[in-house]
Amino acid sequence: MPRLRVALAQSNPIVGDLVGNAQLIVDAVRAAREQGADLVATGEMALTGYPIEDLAQRPSFLATATRAVHALAERLAAEGLGETVVIVGHPDGPHEPRLLGTSNAPTAIAQNCASVLHRGRVVARYAKHHLPNYSVFDEYRIFIPGDELLVLRLRGVDVAVIVCEDLWRDGGPVGRVLEADAGLLVVINASPFERDKDEVRLPLVTRRATETDTIVAYVNIVGGQDDLVFDGDSVVVDGHGTILARAPQFVEHLLVVDVDAAEHTDTELPPNVRRWELDSGSAAAGASEGPQGLRPIAAPAPADVAELPDDREQLWNALVTGTRDYVRKNGFRSVTLGLSGGIDSAVCAAIAADAIGAENVYGVSMPSRYSSDHSRSDADELAENLGVQYSVEPIADLVHPVETQLALTGVAAENLQARIRAIILMGLSNMHGHLVLTTGNKTELAVGYSTIYGDSVGGFAPIKDVPKLLVWDLARWRNEAAIARGETPPIPRGSIEKPPSAELRPDQTDQDTLPPYEVLDAILDAYVTRALGHDDVVALGFDRETVDFVTGLVDRSEWKRRQGAIGPKISGMAFGRDRRLPITYRPTE
Amino acid sequence: MPRLRVALAQSNPIVGDLVGNAQLIVDAVRAAREQGADLVATGEMALTGYPIEDLAQRPSFLATATRAVHALAERLAAEGLGETVVIVGHPDGPHEPRLLGTSNAPTAIAQNCASVLHRGRVVARYAKHHLPNYSVFDEYRIFIPGDELLVLRLRGVDVAVIVCEDLWRDGGPVGRVLEADAGLLVVINASPFERDKDEVRLPLVTRRATETDTIVAYVNIVGGQDDLVFDGDSVVVDGHGTILARAPQFVEHLLVVDVDAAEHTDTELPPNVRRWELDSGSAAAGASEGPQGLRPIAAPAPADVAELPDDREQLWNALVTGTRDYVRKNGFRSVTLGLSGGIDSAVCAAIAADAIGAENVYGVSMPSRYSSDHSRSDADELAENLGVQYSVEPIADLVHPVETQLALTGVAAENLQARIRAIILMGLSNMHGHLVLTTGNKTELAVGYSTIYGDSVGGFAPIKDVPKLLVWDLARWRNEAAIARGETPPIPRGSIEKPPSAELRPDQTDQDTLPPYEVLDAILDAYVTRALGHDDVVALGFDRETVDFVTGLVDRSEWKRRQGAIGPKISGMAFGRDRRLPITYRPTE
Repeated sequence: MPRLRVALAQSNPIVGDLVGNAQLIVDAVRAAREQGADLVATGEMALTGYPIEDLAQRPSFLATATRAVHALAERLAAEGLGETVVIVGHPDGPHEPRLLGTSNAPTAIAQNCASVLHRGRVVARYAKHHLPNYSVFDEYRIFIPGDELLVLRLRGVDVAVIVCEDLWRDGGPVGRVLEADAGLLVVINASPFERDKDEVRLPLVTRRATETDTIVAYVNIVGGQDDLVFDGDSVVVDGHGTILARAPQFVEHLLVVDVDAAEHTDTELPPNVRRWELDSGSAAAGASEGPQGLRPIAAPAPADVAELPDDREQLWNALVTGTRDYVRKNGFRSVTLGLSGGIDSAVCAAIAADAIGAENVYGVSMPSRYSSDHSRSDADELAENLGVQYSVEPIADLVHPVETQLALTGVAAENLQARIRAIILMGLSNMHGHLVLTTGNKTELAVGYSTIYGDSVGGFAPIKDVPKLLVWDLARWRNEAAIARGETPPIPRGSIEKPPSAELRPDQTDQDTLPPYEVLDAILDAYVTRALGHDDVVALGFDRETVDFVTGLVDRSEWKRRQGAIGPKISGMAFGRDRRLPITYRPTE
Repeated sequence: MPRLRVALAQSNPIVGDLVGNAQLIVDAVRAAREQGADLVATGEMALTGYPIEDLAQRPSFLATATRAVHALAERLAAEGLGETVVIVGHPDGPHEPRLLGTSNAPTAIAQNCASVLHRGRVVARYAKHHLPNYSVFDEYRIFIPGDELLVLRLRGVDVAVIVCEDLWRDGGPVGRVLEADAGLLVVINASPFERDKDEVRLPLVTRRATETDTIVAYVNIVGGQDDLVFDGDSVVVDGHGTILARAPQFVEHLLVVDVDAAEHTDTELPPNVRRWELDSGSAAAGASEGPQGLRPIAAPAPADVAELPDDREQLWNALVTGTRDYVRKNGFRSVTLGLSGGIDSAVCAAIAADAIGAENVYGVSMPSRYSSDHSRSDADELAENLGVQYSVEPIADLVHPVETQLALTGVAAENLQARIRAIILMGLSNMHGHLVLTTGNKTELAVGYSTIYGDSVGGFAPIKDVPKLLVWDLARWRNEAAIARGETPPIPRGSIEKPPSAELRPDQTDQDTLPPYEVLDAILDAYVTRALGHDDVVALGFDRETVDFVTGLVDRSEWKRRQGAIGPKISGMAFGRDRRLPITYRPTE
């Protein structure tokens, strides 16, 4: 049984940055070659980043990307890395538009490809068959599906190559991989993190491996891109379902593993399958050459098999990664946020400190006449514990002139306070170049419990997909993690234990307006995340009046949500891109 | 040759308002019956409104909509309207999900249908074959395509029914309509207005009619829905390409016309075509019955053949319709906006006054220490000319305390003025329930020439898809239209003629920062609307440095655009829903 040394390059590309992304790939191939790898595979679209969205409809962008693939092949050869077979993900085009109708609207002109680079050339190319167009995915909009299968014959092994969704579909190309009798199936992916996704994704990879009795090498990108976070978690599973190697989550990693793959048999190929013979001369430095000019395989490198941390740690890492990459990839070096003494801003500050270093986080306490003493002291304590930059800007003298001139009362006066705070944060942002973080959580976003252009301002919202109860959970987890490391738990006990309040009028608490968070989060989970109808939610045992109230708030808050900042998606149904709803809408369910 | 009296119900539905939308249909059927119509057709999704977006993924919403179709059939019969054949557009479902993969993401469970109601029952149903998924359309995301054709045999005529995109696709079901030898093709549509769309849509309808030698009855919805505006413009064209009837744009209308359609021949039906025999007893009140229990056709009613107004008037009407319906359908009765004396706010105020009446428009002049005298006097004159509500709120005393406390200078101090104005408008909105209008135009939105959370605040942006040069054109047109009606031209000459300025520092003009608008709008048209690459724009003859500057601004402004209010779409490429781009993005074209 031939042995192949496979390297999976779990890289963190930036969308559009073809030069930087190509450098990441060259670095990975060099490191892989130093470890004697025969084959290197990158994630889906690793050359351009993912998702490229409607950039795929720009002919000039596609032409640039296509040139970059050829340039990458040439560069690898020029740098002495041409013998290693490299499978790289990229868009290909422009092709003729898929739709041949009379409409002159922009249509798909690109394919989502895996290209095989060898000895300075692009020797073969696979185009993704199944184009996901649900949730956050818009691929049917921008890509033309492929219909051919690709098999590489490499050192006696038939290696099939597919892209992401192709693996998920029953009846997809995996069945034809089996017919083609491939020894190794390489799947390149851009598969976003979601809570509990490891309960779906790894079982799928395992099932496909055992179904086809083929080794499956699954490589994913890593890092934050707008509201998506890719967790990596690249893995190699053999035909018995055994995990041979697994990369850690949320970090760039080169996963190298030796696989003993079935040698090809000269079966006739099923229709639409192309086979490319590769004469691989891949060699570890100094290895002597064996038959066919190939090096004898050295003893297997000990492969990494990373263990997944528990749910809350995974979530924390996803939020930290999403925040860090949004800041970094958009050219910021520091962030500012309001510290109210409450739980949401405390958790956001801790995420930011973990993401970019406490010294780059500028917390601002902005007490009003209604702020309690403990709010102020909890904010002080948080800043002290985290070691973030900290200042205090009282708002009373700024609110008063506006309130008086416009004679604002009631909700208008309450909102004014939140908007003055927004002006302070945006002023500091404009003066010092900080990115403003929005501290709202998913629950308040769902029901619109925030002030538009007030506490909702900011470029990035670290916890916009975290329901309120989970915010508390994460705060407790972060404190426990600190204790376990012998550090001071950062989140003040007061912020965790006191009843939540917007403090926009005397003695206000969230529960003056909203049902208890245990009820609210459960109703939102049913109505929003699981998309149950109003009556079905009532049938779960909730009070009808409460359900009416909550679903009414949700239905009326769509515009506020659309105006909100983006933030890391961690669940199957975040707000924003994976939920498209009308704003103008009269519900009658 | 049998004669059919066809009525096209060009209605203005509200998304989700099944009760209200059904009432519009019942009213139309009653009016049609009073005029002796045999057949009434509504627009696409007239029962639910269009687009329903991800509401189509809620099983409860679909179940409610499906019940509503049956209830509508029963109600029509109960109200004595059951003999009229009614074709109504609606979503049908929930069906089994289209995707049978392992992924548990939400997938399409609905079809986009035209149902035939007769004598209290839903007698037949057609499901749209071609699901547009480009530009503003997301139908592949939410619908399952149909594959059967429907032909109704009505009073001796074979009537084929298709939905919107089915007409546009070469090789679509229209070819099979021809094979089925239908005498009349009914197409129900939700086709948004775009500038110059009549140069594409009517020729298409005409071409399909002549290609198939069939009368084509094309019915469209009308009205604003978020950033879409449907123009109606329903039309009936015969097999020679002659327009038999045409409804006016932007208003609800019942278009009634007699058509002499070819009698069916008993050709064998092509595969996947179902034919339903309808025994129509449709009759005008008091008409005597003829053979087969049918009324003899009365003399043809004189059909309307509306003429399209010129381009600028169409645009103005689209903007007014979009604004009126957003205000009305979201339950507002009044709007507020800042009046700077500049051209953008003047045009927005005039649109708003035409949309909801001057008495419901609250203009606010918010002069700063940098505001020129003529800005103030132009704003006064505009308010006077339009007859809108008007107040003056100087901002100096509100800006000063913030500027001093935070020591803001430079751009931060400039932005502060715009943000204080936003606080004033939002305060008035919260106090009095006005919707805030954002006055930014497409050009400034494209390059980010605005203050986020400042002049960009507001729920609706009437001119967000109108480039700056076109804003001036529309202002001149509106003044000319007033003069033609013997009214005072509303837009002050000063607002049209003075150099545009943000007036955030002394003697500032837009052209301190931006290229001349003639150049800027032309580059934006090439780079954004026509999606040309950077080098292709230079090749058109623009200065390379200017192109670098402008495309750099566009690439960096995506987040600001996403944060902006929605507004009526009038071109092939507006910002917002029909352009999906990454925010985090490093261009390398």
